[in-house]
Amino acid sequence: MTHYPKPMSRLIKELAKLPGIGPKTAQRLAFHLFAMPRDEVVGLATAMVEAKESLKYCDVCGHLTDESPCQVCQDSTRDRHLLCVVEEPKDVIALEKTREFKGVYHVLHGALSPLEGIGPEELTIAQLMQRLQTREINEVILACDPDMEGEATALYLAKIIKPLGIKVTRLARGLPIGGDLEYIDEVTLGKAIEGRQEL
Amino acid sequence: MTHYPKPMSRLIKELAKLPGIGPKTAQRLAFHLFAMPRDEVVGLATAMVEAKESLKYCDVCGHLTDESPCQVCQDSTRDRHLLCVVEEPKDVIALEKTREFKGVYHVLHGALSPLEGIGPEELTIAQLMQRLQTREINEVILACDPDMEGEATALYLAKIIKPLGIKVTRLARGLPIGGDLEYIDEVTLGKAIEGRQEL
Repeated sequence: MTHYPKPMSRLIKELAKLPGIGPKTAQRLAFHLFAMPRDEVVGLATAMVEAKESLKYCDVCGHLTDESPCQVCQDSTRDRHLLCVVEEPKDVIALEKTREFKGVYHVLHGALSPLEGIGPEELTIAQLMQRLQTREINEVILACDPDMEGEATALYLAKIIKPLGIKVTRLARGLPIGGDLEYIDEVTLGKAIEGRQEL
Repeated sequence: MTHYPKPMSRLIKELAKLPGIGPKTAQRLAFHLFAMPRDEVVGLATAMVEAKESLKYCDVCGHLTDESPCQVCQDSTRDRHLLCVVEEPKDVIALEKTREFKGVYHVLHGALSPLEGIGPEELTIAQLMQRLQTREINEVILACDPDMEGEATALYLAKIIKPLGIKVTRLARGLPIGGDLEYIDEVTLGKAIEGRQEL
């Protein structure tokens, strides 16, 4: 990169730090940024710094927000008896997009993974237990990812929540809509048979 | 994106304007930026704006630079009798990396392309001819891309430069180093046979 003028090589170096952006992509992006109108470059730069400075995690549920409590926790129309536990803020966004869920959330910020040294203390499980003890929650929906870590986390949470006398459920397993039966993996297909519903 | 807090959705929107970055990648980058230390985010943002503000094209050769004339044009050790014509600033960088070329450059900022409405006036050909008339250049190396537009540009330039009594050459065509003969396209292989060299 030493052959570039300094501001260019610096920009390429900074861009290449981002995930999934190698030196070639960084170079292409840098040339694109140079060709962009000044206003747009400033717009992007400002958006980056402002996002970094104004975003935080909600003190109540752990969701990404620019005000705490977050909009979901503030919303008086949400059902506070129904709590959905997810791994990441992205999962809250995914569930909100469905417009199916009217309860509130709890974000764990990860999943149990002994191999990566992530135990219950690394997640927001203590805060979750506190919420369950102090608030009137009737049902906890465990919406962990359908992978090994997610399953382990859900089983662990079910084991410690059930003794509180709270109903614990998890998202249905089955065929993804639009999927092709032929290409669906055996485990999913097995779960779909197991959980078959009467028409 | 309406489910995200405002600073996040704005950042995702701005990132998704970049080439090759779709909404999913933009979301991933935005979460990564949020997780990065504040200093690094400010570093990237500053590098973007500074690059945009300080970079320009060299008044002499058209290369990307933060000072005009550029470092190559300023360098008194370079051979001013030898001029290499390239399409883009990126090509100057590529040639500089070889450390083989000791002359100076002229950047066309494109190649002739009647289909895209790019004629000689859209390129820096007038400036090139002016340099050739006023300076002592003995040889012009046409280092256009080995594609249709590049070939057409090289032929056009050769036609107008030769009458000035200047030697015109172009980069050799042949096998790329590290390439596998079996997988090299016919045209390149044909050029390699045509330009075969005695050992």
